[in-house]
Amino acid sequence: MNIEQLTQIPPLDEEAMAQARARQDQLTKPQGSLGRLEEISVQIAGITGNPRPKLQHKAIVTMAGDHGVVAQGVSAFPQEVTPQMVVNFLHGGAAINVLARHVGARVVVVDMGVAADMSSFDGLVIKKVGYGTHDFTQGPAMTREQAIQAILAGAEVVEDEIEQGLDILGTGEMGIGNTTPATAIAAVLTGKSPDEITGPGTGLDAEGIQRKIEAIKRGIAVNQPQADDALDVLSKVGGFEIAGLAGAMLAAARNRRPVVVDGFISTAAAMIALALAPDLRPYLIAAHRSQERGHDAMLEWLGLEPVLDLGLRLGEGTGAALAIGIADAACKLLDEMATFAEAAVAGKK
Amino acid sequence: MNIEQLTQIPPLDEEAMAQARARQDQLTKPQGSLGRLEEISVQIAGITGNPRPKLQHKAIVTMAGDHGVVAQGVSAFPQEVTPQMVVNFLHGGAAINVLARHVGARVVVVDMGVAADMSSFDGLVIKKVGYGTHDFTQGPAMTREQAIQAILAGAEVVEDEIEQGLDILGTGEMGIGNTTPATAIAAVLTGKSPDEITGPGTGLDAEGIQRKIEAIKRGIAVNQPQADDALDVLSKVGGFEIAGLAGAMLAAARNRRPVVVDGFISTAAAMIALALAPDLRPYLIAAHRSQERGHDAMLEWLGLEPVLDLGLRLGEGTGAALAIGIADAACKLLDEMATFAEAAVAGKK
Repeated sequence: MNIEQLTQIPPLDEEAMAQARARQDQLTKPQGSLGRLEEISVQIAGITGNPRPKLQHKAIVTMAGDHGVVAQGVSAFPQEVTPQMVVNFLHGGAAINVLARHVGARVVVVDMGVAADMSSFDGLVIKKVGYGTHDFTQGPAMTREQAIQAILAGAEVVEDEIEQGLDILGTGEMGIGNTTPATAIAAVLTGKSPDEITGPGTGLDAEGIQRKIEAIKRGIAVNQPQADDALDVLSKVGGFEIAGLAGAMLAAARNRRPVVVDGFISTAAAMIALALAPDLRPYLIAAHRSQERGHDAMLEWLGLEPVLDLGLRLGEGTGAALAIGIADAACKLLDEMATFAEAAVAGKK
Repeated sequence: MNIEQLTQIPPLDEEAMAQARARQDQLTKPQGSLGRLEEISVQIAGITGNPRPKLQHKAIVTMAGDHGVVAQGVSAFPQEVTPQMVVNFLHGGAAINVLARHVGARVVVVDMGVAADMSSFDGLVIKKVGYGTHDFTQGPAMTREQAIQAILAGAEVVEDEIEQGLDILGTGEMGIGNTTPATAIAAVLTGKSPDEITGPGTGLDAEGIQRKIEAIKRGIAVNQPQADDALDVLSKVGGFEIAGLAGAMLAAARNRRPVVVDGFISTAAAMIALALAPDLRPYLIAAHRSQERGHDAMLEWLGLEPVLDLGLRLGEGTGAALAIGIADAACKLLDEMATFAEAAVAGKK
């Protein structure tokens, strides 16, 4: 597979959507009274081509990578936390494990570029493109070839999951420092100043946020990423897990699977993916509104309205897991509710 | 039991809340990064007195009643839909059945005052106070004695459920025309004009909304409900299912169970319950922001921030079921996540 093939995404199935909409209007409730749940069910009908879609097999793909820019003091936590949290994911002790269990999803943990040797850990999918990116204040985070390699590796992960059975994909990530490249991507693609959209990440103080803003500005000034060339942006100020997630989203859409985009970092990956393939948009469901500053601007650029707004700012796929639970409920309502005729309930006067 | 006993509600357990908060800060995530989920887990710790609460037994109590005021043309659906939907609930074909199954909750369907004989239906809890209320544009909807009877009957339903095992209560209702009494209650208690807070309910057109506003204004003018006397308001412009839900909420809180308040009608019941027992407030979780106009003003009066905002306007307990799923997730995170020490993950720098 190459990028050109990966970015060929079919349109939604209008006929399946029309059938789903018609069924919604026959179910025992006032028309439209299930609001966003009705919309989600119709969207998933169109994505899957099934007017009564069932979300049996659910997966959160959580991709990990490290970031050279942490040398600039842009994170409240030390870099060793990335591999430590990967191990926590594998042992089932992290927030994403709890929430994935809660909604009946499996967690697929992927090493896209952790700055430590992870080869001894059972259950980890290894797609390592490098031992962390380069510090983008000093030059490109990765080469263009590495960006392409990471996107295709991320796509491979999803192709493999589809073989195991996959009805909906949730995205997630772990990477100390990764709100910095995500903010840099958002700044370049939206055209907004880093001053406007840079937040505290895992918990920077005001001084730390200022350092982070300066690092992002320097990264953009040094590398001059071209906003109309997503691979250029991704390679110069991105990250390996962000690239992998972009590839994962494209692969899911190409195979007509709905994609639930988690928070701040996943949204940056969605921006890269959408810049590569504008036909991706109707496959995306924005899981939640992140507490991280700048997320609103990113969602607006994507044209997505988030499902949840719970003040989350953790990542890992936590918001995606909860939104998958909502999407599952939406599909069950469409599929399982009785119609007015079946239940012998009178309609509107 | 009498109203005075029912409204004696203990304060939250501060010690359990402090322990839950301390544990949240030890779990493998940046402090506070699970936002509202952390708050909900701490609230439920305080309600239950258990620093690691588990929500094993979940119930949605869905109470049905009819409304004399439908004679004024205030609903888009005919009154016979109330008993028909009760039967749909009992057969498992309504939205609330699907969503309750989705979150692992049982549905308890209660006849508080349906205008039809429901005695032949298996599985229905019969607490009928009357065959629908009187048309409140002509005089009080019910007597003060009936209001008290309905509150105590609703409380009994929850006391019985607690005996079966109940860790969290969701409220729901069915009653053609019941946004009209709910709006009337909201108008009296918030002091807002019906012009400002009256919406289309199940789907009135502009003319229908105007009829509904006039009916509410007439109900208030004819009956002169006293805002500082919740039983007066309830009996003059309320409904049997609204009274029952108020009693259910009070009984749950009195027994230290969290109460997830569904949408517009349940919120009106919560206002009556809170007016009777101000100590109820910390036991309440507002499930969602209803699409029905006026709900915001009611939530503000209650001092509650809703968990979800999905454009729902169905009732039955549908929003409560989804929010119970979120509350369950919140408690599982608190209980099941590994601590930094357990997972050997480094803390903040």
